[in-house]
Amino acid sequence: MSEELAGGDLSRLRQLNAVAVLRELRGTQPLTLTELSKRTGLSRASTEDVARDLLGRGWLAEVAPAAGTVGRPARRYRFNSGAGRLLGVDVGGHKILALVTDLDGEVVHQSRVEVPADAGRRERLAAVDRCVAEALDGTAQIWATGVATTGLVDGTGKVMLSDSLPEWSGVDLGAHVQRLVPGAVRVENDCKLAALAETWRGVARYAKDVVFLLAGLRTGAGLIIDGKLHRGFANWSGEIGALPAAGWQRAPQHLHAWLSKNPAAGGFERVFVAARAGDHGARKAVEKYVKDLAIGASALVLTLDPQLVVIGGGFSRSADVMVEPLRRELERWCLRTPEIRVSAFADEGVALGAVRLALDAVEAAITDGLRP
Amino acid sequence: MSEELAGGDLSRLRQLNAVAVLRELRGTQPLTLTELSKRTGLSRASTEDVARDLLGRGWLAEVAPAAGTVGRPARRYRFNSGAGRLLGVDVGGHKILALVTDLDGEVVHQSRVEVPADAGRRERLAAVDRCVAEALDGTAQIWATGVATTGLVDGTGKVMLSDSLPEWSGVDLGAHVQRLVPGAVRVENDCKLAALAETWRGVARYAKDVVFLLAGLRTGAGLIIDGKLHRGFANWSGEIGALPAAGWQRAPQHLHAWLSKNPAAGGFERVFVAARAGDHGARKAVEKYVKDLAIGASALVLTLDPQLVVIGGGFSRSADVMVEPLRRELERWCLRTPEIRVSAFADEGVALGAVRLALDAVEAAITDGLRP
Repeated sequence: MSEELAGGDLSRLRQLNAVAVLRELRGTQPLTLTELSKRTGLSRASTEDVARDLLGRGWLAEVAPAAGTVGRPARRYRFNSGAGRLLGVDVGGHKILALVTDLDGEVVHQSRVEVPADAGRRERLAAVDRCVAEALDGTAQIWATGVATTGLVDGTGKVMLSDSLPEWSGVDLGAHVQRLVPGAVRVENDCKLAALAETWRGVARYAKDVVFLLAGLRTGAGLIIDGKLHRGFANWSGEIGALPAAGWQRAPQHLHAWLSKNPAAGGFERVFVAARAGDHGARKAVEKYVKDLAIGASALVLTLDPQLVVIGGGFSRSADVMVEPLRRELERWCLRTPEIRVSAFADEGVALGAVRLALDAVEAAITDGLRP
Repeated sequence: MSEELAGGDLSRLRQLNAVAVLRELRGTQPLTLTELSKRTGLSRASTEDVARDLLGRGWLAEVAPAAGTVGRPARRYRFNSGAGRLLGVDVGGHKILALVTDLDGEVVHQSRVEVPADAGRRERLAAVDRCVAEALDGTAQIWATGVATTGLVDGTGKVMLSDSLPEWSGVDLGAHVQRLVPGAVRVENDCKLAALAETWRGVARYAKDVVFLLAGLRTGAGLIIDGKLHRGFANWSGEIGALPAAGWQRAPQHLHAWLSKNPAAGGFERVFVAARAGDHGARKAVEKYVKDLAIGASALVLTLDPQLVVIGGGFSRSADVMVEPLRRELERWCLRTPEIRVSAFADEGVALGAVRLALDAVEAAITDGLRP
């Protein structure tokens, strides 16, 4: 049958083989042709053919044989993660955070610009410009860029609706960032990207179905279903917080109430600090917050039956006073309570998710024809 | 590179090509080799090779050339849907329904056995036996069987939890049905299978993300995500009704209340009939029912952002008094209200979904090596 393979079949097969080889070499140790052939299931000859091709295109690099090799040393190959750079930008309420990474997602440079929560569109976009310029630091090698923003984002990179940032609804964030960098620019909702970051490099790496909860001044959700970010028909998934019965609109009010009864300097953390120290009122406030958070969270869990719930966002730093009460509430409502994990990212999870989005664009280019 | 293709690569490719050809021939008109080659993207020679192979294995049949063909008539092939039979069984609260179909899912025989709602395990299983025996009518060609049941089902075909049927929790339904038929037996929750039926042969054929609502004495949900039935980590998805805040536990009580205040012969339909006739109390009861149904439905829609919501189950026959109020309620809570459609199946949707489950088993066998 091999003689019967038409040109189209062959080049498609060749491409799939190339993607298979690249996949095996991403983020692992260098591999010999024998090891690559074993892992991809391709024949030794096909593997050699693909490796030669990818080496010529700059996707792979050859590395020195392993030390202490006896006999004729086998050539080893690694993914050339330094061939290009990715940019991930988190346009947050209080800060802009930009990460420049290699093609494996390893951060090589970052910058942060503080921005007031009440900053309007122009001021926030100017902060984006400064932050990106500082992060790039003259680098012209950016292959693709991911941008995270609060609010609902359409397929063209426009913010359709933002409740929390002033003048942000309608901003064409994709077009704005595209003026700053070469390569593809993709824009996505921050909760969705935080969820993506957890399955990529965070605590959800092993799980295929994940509910990510952003617990902070805002409450939000990002869903990983069958290993992929679930976007929905118009990219409006995860918005259960819009339903009053889900409890998320009421949840932070309990914390607000305690804070206004106990005025002092400092942010929301004060409630958790006081609760941790045993303050009865603060404990009650956190308990009520968690009870309301758990209603919407249980709705997500009962709907999707995920393997894992990940808690991220500002309040996840107070996981020690929050996770056990949350588990008890979930156990009260859910038929099967999934494992609960706390995000291990400080506050760069969203920006890392934006990097992953940029990497998706590069990988799509690989699959579409190996022309980054 | 074709000389470099190893045996393993080739046989895998051959199998994928075979699946591609079968897929194109399923449920369509007979096709010539030229047409098949065009649709699959395979070379003419590969297509001929695959067709010859599948003909030999009984999967394809040759049909007479099209009438009025000028010149040498091209051979045409069709999927040989008569090569085997599928069985789908709906083990419902009030009835057992069994469908015997060809490999395209066309019903060739069916049987129904009424069973009292309060029947215990032994009585219900005996009804399954009678119904299946009647449906098979001596047929020994069953390639695979799907079974639908209320309750949560585990991966081995056991019912783990059933609220609505007495003595049903713990029944090993898969093992029971396996004694009646040859071939694979798969068991699944009825709401999930009803959702599957809608995307396969029902009103959701065009949609990739679907929320199916079973509206009846019980309220339930089945989710189609990215074109596939979403099961969840332990197969417990779609159970949002377990959350009191979702309103589904309270919903039918409004109808019950009207019925007990207006005693007469007949079932639940009486409320809808009276509402349709303009009875104020009945209208109010239906309105309250829909309001509660819409809370859980909105939670599902906001979570998943589906393209389509399908209403099935017993009450869907009263769609004329239910769908417009439901749409208004969804519009009240959802950021984007999806299209709402009413199931076009009478009460065979669940059994058809069970047939689809059986077909999945056959298709898995195709992909695994063309040995049904």
